Amino acid sequence: MWNEEIETMPREDIYELQLKKLQSTVKRAFDKIPYYNKKYSEANVFPEDIETLEDIEKLPFLTKDDLRACYPFGMFAVDKKEIIEVHSSSGTTGKPVVSGYTQNDIDNWGEIVARGLTMMGLDSDDIIQNTHGYGLFTGGFGVHYGAHRLGATIIPISTGQTRRQVEIMADFGTTCLIFTPSYGIYLGEVAKEEGIDFDKLGLKAIGFGAEMWTAEMRDRIEETFKTKAYNIYGLTELMGPGVGIECSAQNGLHIAEDFFYPEIINPKTGETLAEGKHGELVLTNLERESMPIIRFRTKDLTALHYDTCKCGRTLARMERITGRSDDMIKVKGVAIFPSQIEKALLKVSNIEPHYQIIVTRPDIMDEIEIKVEASASLFSDDIKEMMAVKRKIGEYIQNETGIAVNVSLVAPKSIPRSTKGKIQRVIDKRNLH
Amino acid sequence: MWNEEIETMPREDIYELQLKKLQSTVKRAFDKIPYYNKKYSEANVFPEDIETLEDIEKLPFLTKDDLRACYPFGMFAVDKKEIIEVHSSSGTTGKPVVSGYTQNDIDNWGEIVARGLTMMGLDSDDIIQNTHGYGLFTGGFGVHYGAHRLGATIIPISTGQTRRQVEIMADFGTTCLIFTPSYGIYLGEVAKEEGIDFDKLGLKAIGFGAEMWTAEMRDRIEETFKTKAYNIYGLTELMGPGVGIECSAQNGLHIAEDFFYPEIINPKTGETLAEGKHGELVLTNLERESMPIIRFRTKDLTALHYDTCKCGRTLARMERITGRSDDMIKVKGVAIFPSQIEKALLKVSNIEPHYQIIVTRPDIMDEIEIKVEASASLFSDDIKEMMAVKRKIGEYIQNETGIAVNVSLVAPKSIPRSTKGKIQRVIDKRNLH
Ligand SMILES: [Zn+2]
Ligand SMILES: [Zn+2]
Repeated sequence: MWNEEIETMPREDIYELQLKKLQSTVKRAFDKIPYYNKKYSEANVFPEDIETLEDIEKLPFLTKDDLRACYPFGMFAVDKKEIIEVHSSSGTTGKPVVSGYTQNDIDNWGEIVARGLTMMGLDSDDIIQNTHGYGLFTGGFGVHYGAHRLGATIIPISTGQTRRQVEIMADFGTTCLIFTPSYGIYLGEVAKEEGIDFDKLGLKAIGFGAEMWTAEMRDRIEETFKTKAYNIYGLTELMGPGVGIECSAQNGLHIAEDFFYPEIINPKTGETLAEGKHGELVLTNLERESMPIIRFRTKDLTALHYDTCKCGRTLARMERITGRSDDMIKVKGVAIFPSQIEKALLKVSNIEPHYQIIVTRPDIMDEIEIKVEASASLFSDDIKEMMAVKRKIGEYIQNETGIAVNVSLVAPKSIPRSTKGKIQRVIDKRNLH
Repeated sequence: MWNEEIETMPREDIYELQLKKLQSTVKRAFDKIPYYNKKYSEANVFPEDIETLEDIEKLPFLTKDDLRACYPFGMFAVDKKEIIEVHSSSGTTGKPVVSGYTQNDIDNWGEIVARGLTMMGLDSDDIIQNTHGYGLFTGGFGVHYGAHRLGATIIPISTGQTRRQVEIMADFGTTCLIFTPSYGIYLGEVAKEEGIDFDKLGLKAIGFGAEMWTAEMRDRIEETFKTKAYNIYGLTELMGPGVGIECSAQNGLHIAEDFFYPEIINPKTGETLAEGKHGELVLTNLERESMPIIRFRTKDLTALHYDTCKCGRTLARMERITGRSDDMIKVKGVAIFPSQIEKALLKVSNIEPHYQIIVTRPDIMDEIEIKVEASASLFSDDIKEMMAVKRKIGEYIQNETGIAVNVSLVAPKSIPRSTKGKIQRVIDKRNLH
């Protein structure tokens, strides 16, 4: 184990540690961040009200809307000078959400991921080929910092150039691959085409994450790469990948409970649910200098377990995410909200603001189509004009979401409405649940 | 200054320091790396022959061919366990070139770039928007590690999503942009379209690099962004960006002479040239644990100056790179060799191995066309088959080089030959020199 003391700490001690950290986090947030001060004052709850861990339920939830209201730097508890890195995730509407890090936050991120990579059976001898993208997205960097901390060798290849990935995997003796399930399955296909024999390659583990997955997908990955595949969970608002990582038991993801306090709530009522009950995951940063996030509604549906794991760790385990409590969709590992599509469409004239998002997975890669109703005048116009509008829509959506989509322009009022006149915004045909 | 002692060291002291470091580097390379041991033994030169700095001329040059012969890890002077990160640049033919880093090497990289960012007038208060790509390419990471070391805020946005770049620049209060000149000029155009007023934005500096540039390009960049723009030079084999960075005087790039020993040679004869003479830059790592590179022929054409700079620094300055001594071309910031195109074409049947690379810059972005002669049978075949071959060629070239190209299939023997029957491989119409 990377940190046996923490990873096997008796539950009582974990709770004690968490309470102490929660109290100081809430106090810091209240004292340093006007947004929390106002929000908590209005809810008539104050730092001194947190006397037990259960008292956290007195605190109002935080949502993406709160973070957006603080855009860009209103959630920082430290001077901007102390921030050394900024990431960002797409927002549900309008502005994106910002995530800041001090040097200590970056160090802790590396520590947490190094611990998780150790759970996956890796050590400083390993060679980790990281196909996650680097950029404002936290996927690439989380694994990068974790690998540095572990002392392993990181190959920061990021996504794409798949044939080169295969060549490097074989030539460098990669022992661990990091990928999104859909890219991993594609990578496996290409590797097979190129004649790679995974029995000989000597992979020790695969870390996958950043999109929804099924047991069948994991089976297919393990069968292709001839090694065990472990899920990595995280989100930019709280830190990035590493919030939870699976151990050898592959029976849920151990949450780094000294850094995050997890709760499960009923997404409709907000009521806290007991161990083993399915609901929405709510997370709280317990040790984050830059930007303490308290009771953040992740919208991810899962359940928590607190019994000691077969691996010997006492850290809580979360189940595989089985869905979302909102209309976010993940396509090719990227989170997309209908509101982003709306924002992009508003920039284009000659179309109606009526659209539908259709997600499919014809074989192994996600495809996304945006069906948009053209204006009556455009629809009767010449084809060249329509092509130009289509191209423009595609360009704006890619700028907004970062991914390429297929755009189709359809006749006004041709997208089916419900009896209440509403369009079903997202049609996900991938059957992921 | 970041490190005044080194940056203003009297020339005598720099030479003394360099000699000591060179001696120990050559000894380590000879003792630890069989490839050097054999190469130097065959040339009948040994570590103890290095008694003065000029004695470096006794050592044979290192080229990409040498590095390729050592692919993947034959240049490592330390156990693979000590390597924590691996980058790679495209090779002239066949295998790419590998660059490895220990923890100390990564720390030094950060140190060198932090020093350079300080020369550009930045400090820990600054917000650096890094549009360089992250990945096996070193561009993104060099600036990233330097910004961390400086304690500035890094926005690791990488290339693309240009409208979002503009939004973030305005919202986050970016004070420094890092880009390739061609992407920078494009970014400037988009920013203008979006109504950004650079007089109000408060940029303090721009760092640009990773492709050839002209004084006119710098003028255009400074005029657009209303701030000074500084060139950053480096190459993956030696470390990455940061080998040389411009100071406020904008009169050449200061080389981090405590980490790199620069020479200028006549690329035809290999003879060392005097201060101020134009020739090929040769570089030597003076303090690199993982992979000491000694007398590497960069193929970049420049000149060196050793007089004290207006800024007060004594560190040698190299002029802007004005050309290459080989047939490498840089397109959209990516190095491409005809041999990579050849390698890709060899994988496609139904075409002749005759091709031409045509680079243009219609407005501000590079475009690259690969003209390939189809086989007689394919050329008389139906259009669908030709389209499929074209697509395949494009895909293989993108896998090899990382960039998208336009492919055109032409009739057998239609590309003009010289009287000796040779095709001019590269036609660069960009007028960069
Ligand atoms: Zn376990
Ligand atoms: Zn200077």
